[in-house]
Amino acid sequence: DELPALVGALRTMCERADFVVVSGGLGPTTDDLTLEAAALAAGVELETDPSIVEHLKALFARRGFTYTPNNERQARVPRGGQAILNPFGTAPMVALRIGRADCFLLPGVPREFRGLFDQEVLPRLEAKLAAEPRRVHRAARTLKVFGIGESLLGSAVAELPAKHPHVYFGYRAHAPETHLKLLAEGSIAEEASARLAAAEVDVRPILGDRLFGFDKEELPAIAVAALKATGGTVAMAESCTGGLCASLITSVPGASEVFVSSAVVYQEKAKTQLLGVPTELVAREGAVSAPVTRALAEAARERAGSTFGVAITGWAGPTGGTEADPVGTIYVCLTDGRTAVERRRVYRFDRERVRLFAAYLALDLLRLNARGIQK
Amino acid sequence: DELPALVGALRTMCERADFVVVSGGLGPTTDDLTLEAAALAAGVELETDPSIVEHLKALFARRGFTYTPNNERQARVPRGGQAILNPFGTAPMVALRIGRADCFLLPGVPREFRGLFDQEVLPRLEAKLAAEPRRVHRAARTLKVFGIGESLLGSAVAELPAKHPHVYFGYRAHAPETHLKLLAEGSIAEEASARLAAAEVDVRPILGDRLFGFDKEELPAIAVAALKATGGTVAMAESCTGGLCASLITSVPGASEVFVSSAVVYQEKAKTQLLGVPTELVAREGAVSAPVTRALAEAARERAGSTFGVAITGWAGPTGGTEADPVGTIYVCLTDGRTAVERRRVYRFDRERVRLFAAYLALDLLRLNARGIQK
Repeated sequence: DELPALVGALRTMCERADFVVVSGGLGPTTDDLTLEAAALAAGVELETDPSIVEHLKALFARRGFTYTPNNERQARVPRGGQAILNPFGTAPMVALRIGRADCFLLPGVPREFRGLFDQEVLPRLEAKLAAEPRRVHRAARTLKVFGIGESLLGSAVAELPAKHPHVYFGYRAHAPETHLKLLAEGSIAEEASARLAAAEVDVRPILGDRLFGFDKEELPAIAVAALKATGGTVAMAESCTGGLCASLITSVPGASEVFVSSAVVYQEKAKTQLLGVPTELVAREGAVSAPVTRALAEAARERAGSTFGVAITGWAGPTGGTEADPVGTIYVCLTDGRTAVERRRVYRFDRERVRLFAAYLALDLLRLNARGIQK
Repeated sequence: DELPALVGALRTMCERADFVVVSGGLGPTTDDLTLEAAALAAGVELETDPSIVEHLKALFARRGFTYTPNNERQARVPRGGQAILNPFGTAPMVALRIGRADCFLLPGVPREFRGLFDQEVLPRLEAKLAAEPRRVHRAARTLKVFGIGESLLGSAVAELPAKHPHVYFGYRAHAPETHLKLLAEGSIAEEASARLAAAEVDVRPILGDRLFGFDKEELPAIAVAALKATGGTVAMAESCTGGLCASLITSVPGASEVFVSSAVVYQEKAKTQLLGVPTELVAREGAVSAPVTRALAEAARERAGSTFGVAITGWAGPTGGTEADPVGTIYVCLTDGRTAVERRRVYRFDRERVRLFAAYLALDLLRLNARGIQK
């Protein structure tokens, strides 16, 4: 956060690259120096844009926030630059030519950065690249799987890269998911698309039903969509995941159509208090066990009158566990009132990851059986 | 992910900097090129370390994963480099001298990167810097608040930076929190610490009880600790947050001592099904209202027999809301069976943020009243 270092770095990058994207430093406080640095690097004045000042004041009034004078800092634009209002937050982004580079100054807050990058920066880059003669055309798709690790995925499709020389195979662990990115190149757009499609045709049988979605699709939204498509509803009971599975499914707008409730029965007695599971059953089988998990799933479904009941129990750690079911052991059960499917996994990860994998295991079971449970 | 570009970038950086940290590209798949690039940049051979191969095989066996030959890629070390086993994941990190730089190659997975950086890289940097003569000594502390924005915080403490010229005041929006970082410099360590303490003494009265923690402390853990200190327990009822508040509190190891349960009563009928709140009350007052929120908090507490009951209702959006309570309106209630405190807020954010702010509002209310509710 020192001005001369920022100016130097900007100048160096703007000599080398056609596009430069800067993240952060557009805020209202005195440690936000990106606009000063960009103006100095471009050799222009910094000017306050009165229309942005008005926009910020109106925004603050609408949100019921106090507008303080330091917010005026966010309304400054290097001369010749273009300020673009930020629908995801406060500070506008700025587009500016510095040296040979098209330079984009974006807020550092991740969701604002991502939103503005997708909505404002990417289309400008694409338009500029499309105008270039003799460019390489690219087509890309990310295939998302759950339940298969990066190295196993890499060896499962090991023969394919040689068969598809114009397609780049990229692997990424994105716990609890694993992503396979296919990036095809061609001399025209259709050639790139055809090469991508050919590679995907070879990949899909290998992934099978572990493939849950593509690109920006997320498992919770896929599970919600699968239920919506069949008019199904679900109620949950969560022990070790502590509400994480419900939180993931309710992060999807419109989840209220399919998701009724979750009983987060964290302490042992809560299993009886909220869902009426007999204390004798819990005492006999243990709170983390297939029979208790099934009883929880059935009770959740019955109370809610939903199509499905899902329950998760387990030992998230760091303490707990038994000899038979060590820390990391997870039980999941999905029932429709007649049939039940059950899963047991032992995840040898830390607490946070065990919870995440357990919640995903439940959502994945729901996705696979949303059309009706088939043993 | 092109080898010549990676080698060129590494060489350039290792000419300029004393320390270079590389994130990612250590995985088992063919697109992981960091080790090749580092070996080429250093002008040395890449050698497979048999002890790491054994370690990886044992690790995979312990986790019940399939060891595939491509995992051997993670056991390669540029000659002269030092491999350091990774307690947070699979790929070891590598420390290597390239040019004038001490170069650290770390896995890109955020939790592995963070863990190894804190545990292995930082102590090496600190040891090296401490050995330098006439270095500047620094002392830093981050103060974390909830319920006050970055610009308001900046103007609240606006007078202080001038009074503390050797202390840097840094502001960061870290929704839903706001962070104020104080970084003091001095010619000896004691001077830096004293300057930091003096600035903090001036800052704390301005922040008041909105200050919930320091540095790596997190609000859920602070709330759990506050309950533990008084032997209190809590049960929740969540509507719009859909289990997020329970998920945050159960992310804290040992939360089971104080957290009994949460009824995630997402659909209207679930409020009656799980907690017995009368349908007439919900119909008359609306599911998002102070009376229903209070009834949910009381029912959650009574069923669980806990010290406190907390309930959250609201309109997370994108649809819903009424004229009186538009999208973004949140009600929170905390009761101990005799007294109740209630909060209403209107958060004009997107769905994801409204949920997060609502969950934090509930946790913050719990933190402030864990010693007993005082109206």
